[in-house]
Amino acid sequence: MKIEVAFTPAELAGIDLGDRVVVVLDVLRATSTIVEALANGARAVSPVSTVDEAVRLAEALGREGVLLAGERRSLRIDGFDMGNSPLEFTRERVSGKQIVLTTTNGTVAILASATARRVLIASYLNLGAVAEELVHDGGPASIVCSGRERRFALEDALCAGALVRRVSERTDGAFELNDAARAAVDLFAAYGADLAGAFARTAAGRQLIDAGLEADLEYCTRTDVHAVVPELRDRQIIS
Amino acid sequence: MKIEVAFTPAELAGIDLGDRVVVVLDVLRATSTIVEALANGARAVSPVSTVDEAVRLAEALGREGVLLAGERRSLRIDGFDMGNSPLEFTRERVSGKQIVLTTTNGTVAILASATARRVLIASYLNLGAVAEELVHDGGPASIVCSGRERRFALEDALCAGALVRRVSERTDGAFELNDAARAAVDLFAAYGADLAGAFARTAAGRQLIDAGLEADLEYCTRTDVHAVVPELRDRQIIS
Repeated sequence: MKIEVAFTPAELAGIDLGDRVVVVLDVLRATSTIVEALANGARAVSPVSTVDEAVRLAEALGREGVLLAGERRSLRIDGFDMGNSPLEFTRERVSGKQIVLTTTNGTVAILASATARRVLIASYLNLGAVAEELVHDGGPASIVCSGRERRFALEDALCAGALVRRVSERTDGAFELNDAARAAVDLFAAYGADLAGAFARTAAGRQLIDAGLEADLEYCTRTDVHAVVPELRDRQIIS
Repeated sequence: MKIEVAFTPAELAGIDLGDRVVVVLDVLRATSTIVEALANGARAVSPVSTVDEAVRLAEALGREGVLLAGERRSLRIDGFDMGNSPLEFTRERVSGKQIVLTTTNGTVAILASATARRVLIASYLNLGAVAEELVHDGGPASIVCSGRERRFALEDALCAGALVRRVSERTDGAFELNDAARAAVDLFAAYGADLAGAFARTAAGRQLIDAGLEADLEYCTRTDVHAVVPELRDRQIIS
C-alpha cells in the first residue's frame, strides 16, 4: 500500500488525484469539529470557502434545519450560529441539522481535494476508524495536512504521523512512504506522548489560548473518541 | 532573533520578504554544488529557470570563460559542459569561470526568493559559515527548503534543522521559531547521527543512487568543509 503525506495542500497542486483516497486533516480545529458534528447526529456538513458563500448557501437551503458555522482568526463570524469549536457541536444543537462551515484552512483544503477518488475527514477523535477505512480501501492514499495559512502546522503533521503508524500496524509495515510520511512518523514519536503540551506551543495552539479557547486544544488531542469516517460526496460531508 | 523554516518555497508565496535574510537550501544538490563551485574559485554562478534561458545567457556572456551547467532528472543536460554534481566543480575546471546553472528545484527556489533583503546559499558544506553570518546579520531569517517538485524533501529539512541548531548555540537560544523550525530541529536530532543513511532513503537520494551518483550523496553530507557564504546580488551568486 502506498501512503504519502503532504504537509500543505500546495504540495498536491497539479497532481492527478483521480486514483487517490485523500485524507484531510485540520486538527485545530476544522476536521475535529466536522467529526464531532457528524458523530453527534448532524445530517451533513457543507464546506465552503467564503463567508458570503456560506450565507448564500444557508439561505438557499432554507434557514430551518441549517446551522451557519465558522471562524476567522479563531473567532465565530458575526451573525453566524456557531464558531468552529468542536465543543459547541453537541448532540442537542446539531442532531438532524445541516451545517454550513467556512474556516481559514481546513475547509479550503477539503475543497482543494475534491477531485480525488474519495475524500475522508480525519482528526485524533476518529483516528482508528479512519486507519481501518484506509486499510480497507487499499489506497493509494494521500494524507493532506491543511496547515496554517499555507504553512506547515505541527499539530497536523503529528496527526498524519499517528495515522500512518496506525495503518502500518494493521498492514505489517508492507507499504511505501514518501519523505513527509516518514518525517511525520518520527515527529509523532518525538511529541506523541504529550500532545497537549506540543499543541500549546504551536502557532495555532497559541492563537487558541490567546482567544480563551484552551479547552478546544485539549479536546482535539483526544484519540479514538468517535467511530465515524466522514466522507465528502457531492459537496457535502456525510458519515 | 526570529528564525523560521519553510519546507517548500510555496510556503513563502505572497509573503513580503523585504526585511528578511533568506537562506536557500537544496542539499541534493544545487546549493551544495554552488557552494563547491564558489569555494573552488568560480567567479559567479547565475541561476536560471529554463534550459533555453541558460543557453541564451551563456551566449550573451560570450562562451569564453563561461560554463553551462545543470540537470534534469539528476542527469547532465545534453550539450551542457557540466551536470549538477558538486564533485565535477573542481578548482581546475571552475576557477575564474562564470557558471550558468539550471536545476529542477534549487535554482527555482533561489529565484523565487530574489525579493528578500538578502539571499544566502547554504548546504552542509558551509553550514557553520552560514550560521555565523545569520548571527551577524541579526535576522529576521527565513530558511527555505527547495524540496522536490514542490514537495517536502527530508534532506533539506534536516539541513534546516542543523542550521537552526547552530544559530541557537551561538545566541543562547534567545529566538523565536515557527512550527517548521522546531520540527526541523527535532528531525535533525532523530537523523543527524547518520545523514548518509537518512539521505539514501529519501526520494532524491534514491534517484541519485539509481543514476549511479551515490558519491554525490555522501559528499553532500560533509559538514563545514568550506567557509564561503554565497550571496545572490543582482541575479548572480557570488561569495
